[in-house]
Amino acid sequence: MKKSLAILLFFFSFNLILSQKIERIEPANWWVGMKNNSVTLLIYGKDISDLQPAISYPGVTMTENKTVENKNYLFLTLQINPDAKAGTVKIKFSKDNKVILTKDFPIYARETNSANRESYGSKDAILLIVPDRFSNGDEKNDIVKTTLEQKLDRNNEDARHGGDIQGIINHLDYIKSLGYTQIWNTPLIENDEPTYSYHGYAATDFYKIDPRFGTNEDLKKLSTEAKKRNIGLIWDVVLNHCGSEYYFVKDLPEKSWINYPDSENRVRTNHLKTTITDLYATEIDKEEYLNGWFDGHMTDLNQKNPLLAKYLTQNIIWWIEYAGLSGLRVDTYSYSDKKFLADWTKTILEEYPKMNIVAEEMSRNIAQTSYWQIDKKNTDGYKSYMPMMMDFSINDNIVSALNEKSGWFSTWRKVYESVANDFLFPHPENQLIFPDNHDLDRFYSRLNKNFENWKLGIAMYMTIRGTPQFFYGTEVLMTNDKAGSDGQRRSDFYGGWKGDSKNAVTEAGLTNEEKEAKKYFSTLLNWRKTSDAIANGKFKHYAPTNNDVYVYFRYTDNQKVMILLNKNTNKVKLDLSRYKEMIPNHFNAKDIISGQDFSFENTIDIPAKTPMILEVKN
Amino acid sequence: MKKSLAILLFFFSFNLILSQKIERIEPANWWVGMKNNSVTLLIYGKDISDLQPAISYPGVTMTENKTVENKNYLFLTLQINPDAKAGTVKIKFSKDNKVILTKDFPIYARETNSANRESYGSKDAILLIVPDRFSNGDEKNDIVKTTLEQKLDRNNEDARHGGDIQGIINHLDYIKSLGYTQIWNTPLIENDEPTYSYHGYAATDFYKIDPRFGTNEDLKKLSTEAKKRNIGLIWDVVLNHCGSEYYFVKDLPEKSWINYPDSENRVRTNHLKTTITDLYATEIDKEEYLNGWFDGHMTDLNQKNPLLAKYLTQNIIWWIEYAGLSGLRVDTYSYSDKKFLADWTKTILEEYPKMNIVAEEMSRNIAQTSYWQIDKKNTDGYKSYMPMMMDFSINDNIVSALNEKSGWFSTWRKVYESVANDFLFPHPENQLIFPDNHDLDRFYSRLNKNFENWKLGIAMYMTIRGTPQFFYGTEVLMTNDKAGSDGQRRSDFYGGWKGDSKNAVTEAGLTNEEKEAKKYFSTLLNWRKTSDAIANGKFKHYAPTNNDVYVYFRYTDNQKVMILLNKNTNKVKLDLSRYKEMIPNHFNAKDIISGQDFSFENTIDIPAKTPMILEVKN
Repeated sequence: MKKSLAILLFFFSFNLILSQKIERIEPANWWVGMKNNSVTLLIYGKDISDLQPAISYPGVTMTENKTVENKNYLFLTLQINPDAKAGTVKIKFSKDNKVILTKDFPIYARETNSANRESYGSKDAILLIVPDRFSNGDEKNDIVKTTLEQKLDRNNEDARHGGDIQGIINHLDYIKSLGYTQIWNTPLIENDEPTYSYHGYAATDFYKIDPRFGTNEDLKKLSTEAKKRNIGLIWDVVLNHCGSEYYFVKDLPEKSWINYPDSENRVRTNHLKTTITDLYATEIDKEEYLNGWFDGHMTDLNQKNPLLAKYLTQNIIWWIEYAGLSGLRVDTYSYSDKKFLADWTKTILEEYPKMNIVAEEMSRNIAQTSYWQIDKKNTDGYKSYMPMMMDFSINDNIVSALNEKSGWFSTWRKVYESVANDFLFPHPENQLIFPDNHDLDRFYSRLNKNFENWKLGIAMYMTIRGTPQFFYGTEVLMTNDKAGSDGQRRSDFYGGWKGDSKNAVTEAGLTNEEKEAKKYFSTLLNWRKTSDAIANGKFKHYAPTNNDVYVYFRYTDNQKVMILLNKNTNKVKLDLSRYKEMIPNHFNAKDIISGQDFSFENTIDIPAKTPMILEVKN
Repeated sequence: MKKSLAILLFFFSFNLILSQKIERIEPANWWVGMKNNSVTLLIYGKDISDLQPAISYPGVTMTENKTVENKNYLFLTLQINPDAKAGTVKIKFSKDNKVILTKDFPIYARETNSANRESYGSKDAILLIVPDRFSNGDEKNDIVKTTLEQKLDRNNEDARHGGDIQGIINHLDYIKSLGYTQIWNTPLIENDEPTYSYHGYAATDFYKIDPRFGTNEDLKKLSTEAKKRNIGLIWDVVLNHCGSEYYFVKDLPEKSWINYPDSENRVRTNHLKTTITDLYATEIDKEEYLNGWFDGHMTDLNQKNPLLAKYLTQNIIWWIEYAGLSGLRVDTYSYSDKKFLADWTKTILEEYPKMNIVAEEMSRNIAQTSYWQIDKKNTDGYKSYMPMMMDFSINDNIVSALNEKSGWFSTWRKVYESVANDFLFPHPENQLIFPDNHDLDRFYSRLNKNFENWKLGIAMYMTIRGTPQFFYGTEVLMTNDKAGSDGQRRSDFYGGWKGDSKNAVTEAGLTNEEKEAKKYFSTLLNWRKTSDAIANGKFKHYAPTNNDVYVYFRYTDNQKVMILLNKNTNKVKLDLSRYKEMIPNHFNAKDIISGQDFSFENTIDIPAKTPMILEVKN
């Protein structure tokens, strides 16, 4: 009996050992020479916490081996000293002093100048792409058998359409020719959800490119190819939530990794950003804002959990190093824990001091958005580190100004007043401006397809303070006829698919207006790229009063540009004496839009419904 | 020849001396024991600067005798030491060492506790009166022969109607019975302009009550009578401009006392308050905002002139001491020089540390208004001293919320979000809230005469954070049918004139709705006066989400009040569990509006379109 029990136990534990596997080590590698030289590995495998990890590698020490509620997780912290050499750390997992498993953990040398990489800013123009809807460059990855959503249906605006990384690579020359210097893709990482997987905001693997977009290697190729064309890659970061199919959601390391783990009492977020700063907010409203779920398939992450916080932070550093990214954009910023957000941003900036990061705070309330910008002295003492904010106020006001009929009161006043609030921002120039994006109706649609107003608006986005971002297809007047429809906003880029009747690149099938728009757009964007005054210059504006002409200047010591936006349906003659603090009564200039040279004396005539971008000649 | 010339000169100079008069000494007196014990007298008379003033009074010294461009002015600075005794200082004016004129300058003892007088705040409710339109208590002063506008025409909304100080005195019991504790009159000082003299904002004598309103003594009587009823008087201060008929405008002491003294190149203000803080504003826009005239008859004062600055400062201290005022309200605040504004306000507060002052910054932009509140840490370093701001944001948002049709998104959100911006204010509770005033359409008109919405709105003004101010006649639903008409906004108070067919006091001629409104209004206002939670309590609000009920609390350690504003056209049942951080699931309360006692358990039923003000019983 004793003997048979022993044999039984032997076989049992032998089987256990045989079956014990490590499914994941995240991150899968790290680098030598990081400022923050400690990395915490999430190690996932059935009953992994029964095993004892150990390493032996010069310059690398294991500083912590943390087990949690769930026995399938281990959190191993390694310290990689500056003098450690690149190579492969072997992690040995033992039980009862017997090594059962060995896993490789490579540590790499960093790219030259990795920490000091340049990022994006006013000098740049950013193209926003929804990869599934941009171009299908590789039909082999259209349907991937291992994923849950296997439907490919271009007639269904909520299904996958087949766009991928190769499609973007194929268009890099086009993107460059338009004048762009940065690309922001909506998330490329795996979203293995049964429906709506195309948009990318319900991640199921923070470390892996979605196979329908390509591989991690493809992303690296995109980055390399883009860099050859002086184009940077901006990564779309989601800290607030992940997909409900994420492995760690289905097998939680600790219950506290997510908010409302029990579905019975789960609530949706109330979207009340006001609760962040409101002196009078109730606890329940604050709680619901922060911890309520975005939707049923977007699991709300609890960044107060220090292991999750570390996981989310390392993940982004990993991608920056791995793919040579130029910058970041953070989705649904204020929905995450405030302290975590400050720590996360600070850590990234400590590692990459020149890195730009832009946060989405989808509010027109500048009091609210300016709260988050680095160096803001908030009354509640909160110290944020976010360098750049998305400017939803100017977005809304430009559309309103353009759509409203001119009256005795200038419609441009809305834009003027929006920008006049910049004094709330410690770094007012560091704002992202955009006529449209994946969550907004297309600019041309919002302008009721008024081409003259579109030109005025685009001229403004090209010249006003801030870093402009445009949505793919804006250059060829892409629209969404049904207001509010996400699917239509993210419709397929003209010519991104074989056999498309319209093609933005070749101009096949484009209307004359679309061709003209593309020419107008690329002329301005390419000029913008070369203009010191626009990239680095100050901004000064004359209050648009009753004649509905907005006049402003961009200027450095080297260059001065006078912008005049005449929204009137009649020609306007401006008396130059009003502008004497900025420009003499007599000057020569080239209008970037018409290409014409002018010599002005005492007055400027601006044709009806016309923008002028006057590069002043010395 | 020599002799005759000498005789001639003798007669000439003798005549000159005989004709030399002092027309004004401003202020006409001062007080012993002021914190700032120096007073500068403006002395006005033909060629007065030829004379040499001197005084001899124990404890009073003349520290400066300043002449200016215009020989008709002298500026005499006296220092009144704390040990000086009240009495009359004789100012002797000499020429060639001969005393030609002697003028009395009394110095008085101050009222007990003058410096530490109490002022207004959240505990108070303020009645705003336009004196010409409130009540004609003294027909003898209806037409004053010495004034320019002698028309009295109640059918002309721009003419004088005959209201006066005696009319206000006659109504003090009524005002008290409504529940008011403060009265703010639009300016009572002389406006001797040929037209539009009734409104009071074009002063022609900062030191004199307009004779059509009464005398300086009448004001004192009003103050004394009001005080007997525990009602304070708030003075309406205009620093930015005066009337074009002001004596010093017609005979400027220095050209620099006013902006654009030459009418040819004079400009109107552009009203661009944004230029105060805008980082990108041009010099010409800033200049036009600050120095442009309000209108052709409102001379824009240049407070950068130190003598004028002193004149404007002393004038208000004089009225506070003279009339025993309880507080101040400053008109068109930001239109004056920023440095002067800070100095002016600081000086008043140094003299009266508990004094409240409210500034008009007619903007819905809270970034803009909060800039001016004392203790605000502005990014440009500007240090303001203004204790209270008028809240035009909530004013607008309450009307919008009430007028908008309920949808899936609560219309109360507008009010909620307005208040949620309070974090921008260093003293958020110190804001003046008002459904209407002399520059706005009447509240009941703005609500399209919807009585249910009016009740909801009034209940809100009675209970939300801040100090409420109501316009005369709001309690009996006074209206202006023509939107934007100043004359109609300021129409005659019901029963203010003999023979009026309608009378708010006696209720003769009032409709049933008007009677009900008055009862509702005075019930709430009288209750408000006694409520510790409203007067001194904190404010906490639940975000109005989709059911269009706004629920908020006012509370101190002693008292808790739960306010529920149901804007729905149907009854709403609220689950009390949501409010558990503020109130238990079972509680007893009295509804101040209906007078009913309730015992709630688990739920509250609120009837359609109904406000409830629940005073919670312990």
